[in-house]
Order: sequence, then structure tokens, then C-alpha cells
Amino acid sequence: MSTIKDIIITPVAFHDPPLLNSVGVHEPFALRSIIEVITETTYGLGESYGDSTHLERLQRAAELIKSSALSIHNTNAIYQICVDSLTNDTATGGDGMAGMVTTASIADKLFSPFEVACLDIQGKMAGVPVSELLGGRVRDNVQYSAYLFYKWAGHPGSPDDEFGEALTPAQLVAQAKKMIDEYGFKAIKLKGGVFPPAQEVAAIKALHDAFPGIPLRLDPNAAWTVETSKWVADELSGIVEYLEDPAPEIEGMAAVASEASMPLATNMAVVAFDHLPPSILQNAVQVILSDHHFWGGLRKSQTLASICAIWGIRLSMHSNSHLGISLAAMTHLAAATPNLDYACDTHWPWKRRDEDVIGDGALRWVDGGVEVPRTPGLGVELDREKLGRLHRQYLECGIRKRDDTSYMRRFEPEFDARIPRW
Amino acid sequence: MSTIKDIIITPVAFHDPPLLNSVGVHEPFALRSIIEVITETTYGLGESYGDSTHLERLQRAAELIKSSALSIHNTNAIYQICVDSLTNDTATGGDGMAGMVTTASIADKLFSPFEVACLDIQGKMAGVPVSELLGGRVRDNVQYSAYLFYKWAGHPGSPDDEFGEALTPAQLVAQAKKMIDEYGFKAIKLKGGVFPPAQEVAAIKALHDAFPGIPLRLDPNAAWTVETSKWVADELSGIVEYLEDPAPEIEGMAAVASEASMPLATNMAVVAFDHLPPSILQNAVQVILSDHHFWGGLRKSQTLASICAIWGIRLSMHSNSHLGISLAAMTHLAAATPNLDYACDTHWPWKRRDEDVIGDGALRWVDGGVEVPRTPGLGVELDREKLGRLHRQYLECGIRKRDDTSYMRRFEPEFDARIPRW
Repeated sequence: MSTIKDIIITPVAFHDPPLLNSVGVHEPFALRSIIEVITETTYGLGESYGDSTHLERLQRAAELIKSSALSIHNTNAIYQICVDSLTNDTATGGDGMAGMVTTASIADKLFSPFEVACLDIQGKMAGVPVSELLGGRVRDNVQYSAYLFYKWAGHPGSPDDEFGEALTPAQLVAQAKKMIDEYGFKAIKLKGGVFPPAQEVAAIKALHDAFPGIPLRLDPNAAWTVETSKWVADELSGIVEYLEDPAPEIEGMAAVASEASMPLATNMAVVAFDHLPPSILQNAVQVILSDHHFWGGLRKSQTLASICAIWGIRLSMHSNSHLGISLAAMTHLAAATPNLDYACDTHWPWKRRDEDVIGDGALRWVDGGVEVPRTPGLGVELDREKLGRLHRQYLECGIRKRDDTSYMRRFEPEFDARIPRW
Repeated sequence: MSTIKDIIITPVAFHDPPLLNSVGVHEPFALRSIIEVITETTYGLGESYGDSTHLERLQRAAELIKSSALSIHNTNAIYQICVDSLTNDTATGGDGMAGMVTTASIADKLFSPFEVACLDIQGKMAGVPVSELLGGRVRDNVQYSAYLFYKWAGHPGSPDDEFGEALTPAQLVAQAKKMIDEYGFKAIKLKGGVFPPAQEVAAIKALHDAFPGIPLRLDPNAAWTVETSKWVADELSGIVEYLEDPAPEIEGMAAVASEASMPLATNMAVVAFDHLPPSILQNAVQVILSDHHFWGGLRKSQTLASICAIWGIRLSMHSNSHLGISLAAMTHLAAATPNLDYACDTHWPWKRRDEDVIGDGALRWVDGGVEVPRTPGLGVELDREKLGRLHRQYLECGIRKRDDTSYMRRFEPEFDARIPRW
């Protein structure tokens, strides 16, 4: 038995471009927390949100876990500690998603990085990759999608970034081309909810023309009413493989789904286990974008996958701005989950190549996907120099909570983050 | 990585008393299969049904698993081999349950003992009990119920067994007393479906009077019509903690559930993952008696447990006649599954004390339950002398397929196994 001796939580910040979405625009830095779970002989890694409320919760849970001298296998006890640590927690926020995923389970979000770190250690000790602990990889390369964003050329007051402006269909096509040229992605997702729906429909049609045969997705983050969503679904029939969160809430999605020709996907309406019964009852969504960061870790994400298989729901994967530990965990999970077979989302291309907390070379991009690491555990190791740099960046950047809306209002004081907007 | 080098499957037979049920009477021997999965450095154990059809399937799958040189972690691949090995399988039977559980997944039944054996090895190699691999034990002692049967005094032509005859309420009370005195059970289950329902209701009432406060269950194995079931439910309102499989099929259970005051439990109507959606839609059952032998092993049983938690279904455990490997696996599973909190069923007291395949002392009965083993893996080791004895018994007993009905008809040629009977 291997006992948890210590847990270190390090907040980090890394540069993020001005990516637009339905609630505002990404700030110059994205925040994450890096979790090290330490035993007598080794350590394991987890990565999670970096908002201050979440950091405080992680720290409180970590203290309780440490003082319980638990086995790295005892995830039942770790989960219960996470639940118990929230008993008197009245803090709001801490979702790290700028208010776009507000009804996920706080306990599951809290538990996730500890579980991933424990699996990393279990894998290291057994000498097998995490994908093996999860049942063995059924694919050697986990496919990701090209995640397009409307964006400004650069943050106000700063030089243009390497992607430049993307506000028109032609600019989005160029963005997709750049990303596909570099990574080989075989699916494209556009983050919408930024412009009136007709403009975004035009953008998807331009992408369809420019990349014939490549599966397309559009995700307005619930910026549309049910009626607007139905109009978009009609316009994009036969063009998108799925439509993501067109309208808010399970009821809204169910109303759209009853008429849409394509599957509806969600990472907003169904984001916790107790959303599944009502969603299934109403056939509200046909694809769930899983995310181990808020579904309670890798094994619980596999439980979600099993539920999806039983009820005939398909499975894709959601992403926030993240670093290499998360990418490794996402890759192991998708590799070992047979029905997680859509190309997963990742914000990876938006991250500066020289900013991460893990050593180089552990994660190899090939043909639009990540090769599943074959080394024990997650297959990534902390680079403490890099970690130190991103931690200093956290200390200096002044951001303590993701807030796309306030940042947007600094430049567009009248910006309306109300959902649905159109 | 630890590779599977060999798999040995040994059929065994052990003495079984003449226990009565809705389809007949237990034969003088119960059959099981003992599965050894062997690696370079150690081995793991599984236990499953012993019917000839099932043995042939196990053997065929074992050959394919061996020739694939799989890692003991790669349960995804082992499961796929089990599925593929059944492609041209047109054999019927092999359920090992005398036709009482006919709609379980054959692939899940086939996969189960290989998975358990792989977990045993994983635990041994990691130096932790299987309950730790499953998330850590949330209880140190797994409670079982006193499993009462109507029975003959002995097999026809043989001397009475130590339990003697149980055909009346008074005899059942005596049987319960003997079992509780020896094991300390704190819950009682009566296998019914043997006598007209009014007699079985009287028996439950006698047990209620004799053991006030002890939770009671009655299981007629779907021997009653919906109308009869409703009458029994009415008679036993406030007396049984749940009523098990009163009527056949999901629809029958749903019809009874709509009027019964107590929860309905099942190990017949909902025995595979694809039964869950229709059952949940109809609220057909309120308790599922899980059984890792037909739900696809320990991790899939935990998936079932998660589903039950999400949809508000409670969880208990089903049992067939079994040996110590199964008891160990059942105990680890229940120990690590928080919502598996009813006392589990076991046929254990009906097995002769000197007949098993594992070494003595590994499983300790205390206060109506089994202490969760703390040693690595399942915590039980093969006793090859004992295994040899039960294998010789298998070779000599002449039984190759459990068939309670034919055995009953040797003594009662007019016996009617039709379900529902009353």
C-alpha cells in the first residue's frame, strides 16, 4: 500500500489569445492549478481550474486528504473527503469556465485532479500507462478537432498574435487552414455565439466549402433561443456532424432536438450525473461532451461513457484552456474508452509552444491526434523550471478568476452577456 | 506490463442439498468452473458457472486470450475477445441457473471470471486487496443474509442432511435459527415459489414473529401472476423489506410496483445493461440484485452501482451456489461499493464446510458478514488438493448441466415448472 504523504497545489497562468465567445473574450492569461500528490517513493500529477475559489477548495480538501494518510488507491475515501470539505462552503464561482458551466458538481470538480494524480501514481507503481489502468487502449492515437474561434488580432494594447484577426468567414477559413496544416486535424469546431446566427451559419458554410468532407461543429454556448436554434439547425442540416448547445437548459435542448435533423451535443445542459435522468427522459441531447475535470475524474468519465453506450448517446470531449497534464489525462481516457470516438476538443493550439509545466516530447502530435503515451502513469513529468515560470506569471498577472465578461466590457462597455441573446 | 501466459479452467462439483425452488430442486451436486489466469510471476483466480456449454465458451475464449499475449490490465481487449468468440455461437443454455436467469448477456458472463482473475493479479502485483483497486473499502465487514430454502430432509435415497426437512413455517424458523446461530446473520431471505402463495406468506409471517426487527425478503422467482403478486404485496406490507421477482418480466414487475407498498427487487427482470432503460422508464424495480458473474465482472458491477445511485435504485446482491473465490470477489465488490448496502445473498451455509477450492482461513465470518480480506488481490489462494478432489467429484458425479426441473421430475413426474404458476 502506498500512502499519500503530501499534496502540493501550484497555481499557474499562461498566455491566452483574445478568443471570443458568448460571454465575452478570453483574458491575456488563462489560469490552471497543478496538483502534485506525493508518496514515499513517487508522485502523481493532476491539473484543474485556477480560479481562486476553486484553489481554496482544492487546498482545504488537500489538507484533509493529507491528514488522513490515505492509500493512493482509496478514491472512495478521497471523494468522501471532497464532499465533506464542502459542507459549509457557501462560496460561489470557482468554475473556471466564465460562468458557462455553472451546474456541474463542485465535489466532482474538486475530486478530479486528486483522482488523476492517484491514477498517475498507480500506473507508475504498476509500470503501466494510465490507459491500461482504465482497461487498455483501444486506439493508439486520440484524435482532436481544430477548435476555431472568432478573435481579435491581439489583446488591446498588445501586438497581434500569430493567428491574427478572425471576424469573417474568410479569416476563419484561414485560421482553420493554419491549424490543420500544423496539426493535421480531421474535424473542425467553431466556437460561435459571438455574431448574429446568420453570420455564423455563413462561416460554417464557408468552412464546408473550403474543407469538403471534414466533419464540422458549431457551438454558440446556448446563445440562441429555441426558435433561432431550429432555424440554424435547418440551415446547417447535412453540413454539421452535430450542433453544440444551441439553446440553454435541458428543456431548451429537448425542444430543438425534437426538430433538428442532426444530433445535438452538450457540455452545458448535461454536466453532472443527476442531469442524466431528465435529459434521457426528454431525449434532450444525442451527444455528451464529457470532461473529466468536471465529471469527477477518469473513472467516473468512463461510467458516463458506459451510461451513454447503454442509452444510445454518443460521446465526445469538451475542453477548456489547459496544459499538458490535462492533455495527457484526456488522451489516456479517450484511448481506453471505446465509445469516446468523436474527435475530442482541445484548446492546445492556442497555447504558446514554450509554455507548459511538463517536459518536452512526452506528448506527440501525429495526424490530428496525440499518440497515447506508452510510459508508466500519465507519461508526463513536471518540469520545475517551467512550472516556476508559469507560477511567477500567475503571481504577476493579477488575474485570480476567469472573467471573460468584465474583460470584454473594458473595451465594449455595453457588451451584453445575456443568454440566449439571439 | 504483465502478460497472460496461460489460462487453466477446471470444472468442479460440490455437494448441494435438495433445495426447492420454482423450477424444481437442487441436484446432489452443484457445478462451478475455476479459472486460473497465469503470468510469468503469479496467477489470479476467477469462478463461474460449470454448465458444459459455459465451460466450452470459457475454453474457447481462454484460447483466444492466451494467443493474444494480452496484458492483465487490458480488459477492453479481453472483453472484445469474449464478444468475438461468440459470433458463431448458436448454443443455448449454459446459464448455470436452471433457466431462471435467461436473458443475461452471454458475453458479460463469459468475461466475468477473466476480469476477476486479472484484478486478482493486479492486486497481487500492486500489493493491495482487490477492494482497493475498486476504490477502497467503505466497510470492513460485508453483511450477508440468511438464505432460507424449503427443502427435503435429504436427497431421495440418501440420508438426511444436517439441516433436515423444511416444508412448514415452523421448520423454516428452525432453519433460520440454526443459520443465524452459526453465522450471526441480521437479515433473512426465503426462496419461495415452491408452495401456494398463502403458505409462503404464512411462513414469512412466522419468521417475522420469530425474529422481530430482522429484515425479511421473499423471492418466488417470478412464480406469481401480477394479480397474485399484488395480493402477496398487500399481505406482507410492513413485513418484508423488499419483495423479489414476484412476477415475470419488466412489464409484470412494473404492474406490481405500481401498487406494492414495498420496493420490488430483481435478479430476473433486469439482468443486463440493456434492460435498464426500459425498466427505469417504467419504474419496474426499486432494488437490483447485482451479480458480478452475469453483469460482466467487478468493474461493470460498479458501473451498475453508479447507475443505480443516479436513478435512485437501491442495490443488493444475488447469489448462486458458489465457492470461496466467488465469495471473496463478492465481498471485495460490496466492500468498495458505497451504495451496495443491503445484506447480500449467499448460498454459503448450504455448502459442506470441507468442500472448497481455496485454503482455509482466508475468509472469516463475523457477525453475519465476511471480513474484507486485507491481503493482496482477492486474498484467497488455490488449495490444489481440494481443487483436485472437487474436480474428481465433477468427473464422477455425471452432472454436466444444472437442471433442477428434470431432477424434480424423477420424483414428481407431473411437476410443473411453468412460470407464473400461481
